[in-house]
Amino acid sequence: MDIDALLTSAAINTGLSVLLFSLYSILRKQPSNSIVYFGRRLASLNNRNSRNHFSFERFVPSPSWIVKAWETTENEILAIGGLDAVVFQRTLVFSIRVFSIAAVMCLFLVLPVNYYGQEMKHKHIHAESLNVFTIANVKEGSRWLWAHCLTLYIISCSACVLLYFEYKSITKMRLAHITTSPPNPSHFTILVRSIPYSVGESYSNSVKKFFTDYYSSSYLSHQIVYRCGLVQKLMVDAEKICTKIKAVPNGQPSLKPCCLCGGSTSFKVLTDEPETVKDSFSYSNLNLATRDNERSAAFVIFKTRYAAVIATQMLQSPNPMSWVTELAPEPHDVLWSNLCIPFRQLWLRKIVTLLATVVFMVLFLAPVTFVQGLTQLEKLSQTFPFLRGFLKQDLINHVLTGYLPSVILMLFLYTVPPTMMLFSSVEGPVSRSGRKRSACLKILYFTIWNVFFVNHVSGGFLYAFNMLSSVGDIPVELAKAIPNQASFFVTYVLTSGWASLSCEVMQPFSLLCNFLKKHLRRNHEDSSDGLVSFPYHTEVPRVLLFGLIGFTYSVMAPLILPFLLIYFLLAYLVYRNQVVNVYIRKYESGGQLWPIVHNTTIFSLVLTQMIAIGVFGIKKSPIASGFTIPLIICTLLFNEYCRQRFSPIFKKNVAQVLIEMDRRDEQSGSDGRDPSTDAFSILSVTANFS
Amino acid sequence: MDIDALLTSAAINTGLSVLLFSLYSILRKQPSNSIVYFGRRLASLNNRNSRNHFSFERFVPSPSWIVKAWETTENEILAIGGLDAVVFQRTLVFSIRVFSIAAVMCLFLVLPVNYYGQEMKHKHIHAESLNVFTIANVKEGSRWLWAHCLTLYIISCSACVLLYFEYKSITKMRLAHITTSPPNPSHFTILVRSIPYSVGESYSNSVKKFFTDYYSSSYLSHQIVYRCGLVQKLMVDAEKICTKIKAVPNGQPSLKPCCLCGGSTSFKVLTDEPETVKDSFSYSNLNLATRDNERSAAFVIFKTRYAAVIATQMLQSPNPMSWVTELAPEPHDVLWSNLCIPFRQLWLRKIVTLLATVVFMVLFLAPVTFVQGLTQLEKLSQTFPFLRGFLKQDLINHVLTGYLPSVILMLFLYTVPPTMMLFSSVEGPVSRSGRKRSACLKILYFTIWNVFFVNHVSGGFLYAFNMLSSVGDIPVELAKAIPNQASFFVTYVLTSGWASLSCEVMQPFSLLCNFLKKHLRRNHEDSSDGLVSFPYHTEVPRVLLFGLIGFTYSVMAPLILPFLLIYFLLAYLVYRNQVVNVYIRKYESGGQLWPIVHNTTIFSLVLTQMIAIGVFGIKKSPIASGFTIPLIICTLLFNEYCRQRFSPIFKKNVAQVLIEMDRRDEQSGSDGRDPSTDAFSILSVTANFS
Repeated sequence: MDIDALLTSAAINTGLSVLLFSLYSILRKQPSNSIVYFGRRLASLNNRNSRNHFSFERFVPSPSWIVKAWETTENEILAIGGLDAVVFQRTLVFSIRVFSIAAVMCLFLVLPVNYYGQEMKHKHIHAESLNVFTIANVKEGSRWLWAHCLTLYIISCSACVLLYFEYKSITKMRLAHITTSPPNPSHFTILVRSIPYSVGESYSNSVKKFFTDYYSSSYLSHQIVYRCGLVQKLMVDAEKICTKIKAVPNGQPSLKPCCLCGGSTSFKVLTDEPETVKDSFSYSNLNLATRDNERSAAFVIFKTRYAAVIATQMLQSPNPMSWVTELAPEPHDVLWSNLCIPFRQLWLRKIVTLLATVVFMVLFLAPVTFVQGLTQLEKLSQTFPFLRGFLKQDLINHVLTGYLPSVILMLFLYTVPPTMMLFSSVEGPVSRSGRKRSACLKILYFTIWNVFFVNHVSGGFLYAFNMLSSVGDIPVELAKAIPNQASFFVTYVLTSGWASLSCEVMQPFSLLCNFLKKHLRRNHEDSSDGLVSFPYHTEVPRVLLFGLIGFTYSVMAPLILPFLLIYFLLAYLVYRNQVVNVYIRKYESGGQLWPIVHNTTIFSLVLTQMIAIGVFGIKKSPIASGFTIPLIICTLLFNEYCRQRFSPIFKKNVAQVLIEMDRRDEQSGSDGRDPSTDAFSILSVTANFS
Repeated sequence: MDIDALLTSAAINTGLSVLLFSLYSILRKQPSNSIVYFGRRLASLNNRNSRNHFSFERFVPSPSWIVKAWETTENEILAIGGLDAVVFQRTLVFSIRVFSIAAVMCLFLVLPVNYYGQEMKHKHIHAESLNVFTIANVKEGSRWLWAHCLTLYIISCSACVLLYFEYKSITKMRLAHITTSPPNPSHFTILVRSIPYSVGESYSNSVKKFFTDYYSSSYLSHQIVYRCGLVQKLMVDAEKICTKIKAVPNGQPSLKPCCLCGGSTSFKVLTDEPETVKDSFSYSNLNLATRDNERSAAFVIFKTRYAAVIATQMLQSPNPMSWVTELAPEPHDVLWSNLCIPFRQLWLRKIVTLLATVVFMVLFLAPVTFVQGLTQLEKLSQTFPFLRGFLKQDLINHVLTGYLPSVILMLFLYTVPPTMMLFSSVEGPVSRSGRKRSACLKILYFTIWNVFFVNHVSGGFLYAFNMLSSVGDIPVELAKAIPNQASFFVTYVLTSGWASLSCEVMQPFSLLCNFLKKHLRRNHEDSSDGLVSFPYHTEVPRVLLFGLIGFTYSVMAPLILPFLLIYFLLAYLVYRNQVVNVYIRKYESGGQLWPIVHNTTIFSLVLTQMIAIGVFGIKKSPIASGFTIPLIICTLLFNEYCRQRFSPIFKKNVAQVLIEMDRRDEQSGSDGRDPSTDAFSILSVTANFS
């Protein structure tokens, strides 16, 4: 691939992006699309005034949304999207900062060294191959390799310093988030699983007996989990209808009669007073709360947060597989269907999904290998001889090498998130945020393996599989492959990166659904059913993959950095816009994403350094290789320090903070209600109706 | 090596063992050696009557000690040596059981198959090579490989079943051990480290403020750790002298005057009443307990066991590197010198010792490679041509191949435990048992790597190092090497195994020291200074190594099994004798050794199965290979189940058990003293004088 092909690709993608962003700026002004582009706003404001007035302005593209996104402060993001959204923004800010430093260093120091690395006659810059700008162009044993080594040092050090301050500030934010959050049922509640079965006694009685016996001073109440039977499902449907009725604008009851409860008006009254709902719909009336329907899981509510956390930290019984406790997720976060899974199955399920994930990752190599073939035109024309004439045309050549491979890869990659989400569901987490985090990790491993590693192994499918068995050779193999695969990854950033942002901002799928609903089903009411929460499980791995590509290519092929910087800047604006306007916050994990980001960045750094050692070795510069080894050690030590210093905050609750919160509650509770009783009433209503 | 050489080696070793055991049975009857062979008994009985009467019986070897060792019950072992001794005995019983099953299967099924595996004319059995009895003699594609596969299944299954029941019973024993143990300061006390420094306030005040603030209901008292200065060391010496004076038979004060306190009689009074000692020697008098000498560590004593454990389970402060809590070790178990190490150094120390251990393991390859050369006589005579004539003699040939390599290896191995113990001390554990466990693990890894793996790699030092980089090839390499290295490991069991037991029972080092002390220094008093606790850190890895050799060779070269069984039977008797007579119990870890034994056994099983797959592959029997794969999966699943079911008991304390114990104390304490106050007084005395 030469500079011309790169420019073609860049031009196509820039054009496409500008076009799509303009289209977005028009589409978002159309009132019919407001539910697609302002879902969160509408849901929070409950302001559904149709602005159907026609104006010319509506059809002129404008950059106002960019200005608005830029002006949003971090506090606003925190208030709107929660700590997770802030963490995601910080990830982008970190990437922008570190790659700005890298870009300055690489473009002004490394790029000239690469370009003049060999005594050769340079062609006109247009016809120059991309390889001339990579480290492949530096001659063996060159004394100029110190430039690469120095740049690597500067990038690694600045990345570590930035990571440290980010980790520190996010830890502080997490603590503040916990301290300032209002009393929440999940703070006072633990989930007890694997309650031992005793003949002639209901699970409910067992729980009561156990906790009044051992936690008499702090135990408040409990709620057994019941099997999700048919009647319950009907009730859930009734609840949904009920919510819909309530959601009708101006509070007018709909005319459709409700067969389960006789009328919509009564429903409305009921939902306003949860206790009444509980009475009229109580499980005992419907015979749901019988012994047969009880499952060996329960929510146990304590009087203080501290007591609840203590109960989760201790091993309860001499059999570690019974009376298993963990902190309950927030009510909206609970994954009710998984609560009924017997605890004894969990470890098997985890192993099975792990194996399934590995098998899926390996089988996925087939399409990737095919895509790889496309970047080498000669291979393609050998495989499909009838294409030869067609492939000789210049434009097609450029499109094929510069664009098509990435598009095919991207399309295949769209099947990954649903599959991984399915695997994570089967695994049996009890919270939606836990499932999302687990899926995020799976997709991350998948992306790094299938997009990054496999594309660098020249021998394709079987060769990549063989490489697994000789772990030590991977850095050397990568060192050989990286300069050659630079063109593929530059175009990958252009296509997959830029296009994914356009796609994200356009929301083509929601737009299509909305269009079909309005024009085919003639349903002109905006419903908030389709509103989704932020897809961290797909977006975090994507951003981290570009980070990995950025680090590994920064020193080897610096030409990738400007494109990457544009990607991160665009991402910063686009995701801000999306957080503010589109996605709703149903639940949150309290910044649990950051350790994933941190660890992946450290992995990227160490991999970059190992590849650099390999490349310096190939270039016969033992001094540069030797100087890089201390860098690896320092990076790993830095990571270990962060693991000691910050990571426990993300895994355990802090006694001091909890006790202070409980005291504050007690002081305010002395003149009012008890927050833990509040928590219980919220929880039991949610438990009955979810 | 042929059967003749094997028999020579066996004869030499049997003769040597019988000789040494007879010598032991005579030596133990000599009154002058009683402190060497009955140290624990004497220490516990305080019965130092010299039995200097002469009798002929004293010089006749007798097997009475074997009978006594055999007749000791498990309860006696538990009472004398504690749970750790029982766990060690169970390890030996497990090995005897599983290798008995293996021996029956292998000698009656696998051995004939191996022997008649190829159509060949068998020589006279004496001259037969050992190789004829290994799997190497089975021809490729033989249909008889199902016998090996079946045997592997039977061995693996019986090992897993036995492991399960052992784990179950040891878990029960551990719980019983905790429940029935008398109130111990370590139950009520936690060790707080990394107390944050605040200007103008002593650490002692900080601790008091923190715990009265957050643990007001359960906090009892605390004891700051002071720096070990010169004055303190003098005091410790004084204390030692004082103990010695007290230990003089018939309570007669010695005539040596004590310069620190003026006289021995007063010392005697003091040691009987710790409180008085504390007053007269209190730190304030000697100006030890000043702020400058305070270290940022303290023992904090709680009113109940449960409260103490809670304080260790929680993260205390928003900075996870300050107010770090862990359960305090027993007073005799505390490694006082390590308490002063700043907590912030610990993670660095761990990394440094890990690296040091790896470097030590790698450098140790040199002597091992040399030893390996000795087993191949041709190599030896090539290296040292002047030896050629000498080597042609038959007896020397046999001794050299069958005996010398193991002896040299063994001598080198004697330097390992002190080195690893040193590394473990530097690592900074706060308890002696923790240090021993850490050293045990290091020695285990060392032994498995240097004795097992490296001996199987034919290419020596550099080749073994290369192998590290291609992990996938290790099983195949082992599969190639195992049948050829059978002779080395048979002799290793004979020499290193049997000789180590004779050595253990004879205690040559203590014997020599005792002899020198009595005859050169003319000191005829038995002192209990030299008494040591059981060296689990050297003996557990040794037994586990023989287990590993047993598993891997059982199917491949069954001739090793009888020798191994004899080793385990002898070990069973010898170690029982040693636990009852020689070693004292200063502290114990409560069965923490078992998870190490369990994990190593699972590792050995899986390695055996992987090697079997490799060997079946080499023998071109894909069916047998295929049938072995499910076995690996089942073994790993079994291990995961045990990890879920039993292992948490060894890591965390059980709330239910602790609460019951506290209640029992409360009931008995209502009519008497408070056990936690007792605990405090014990601890503070120990803290002041250790």
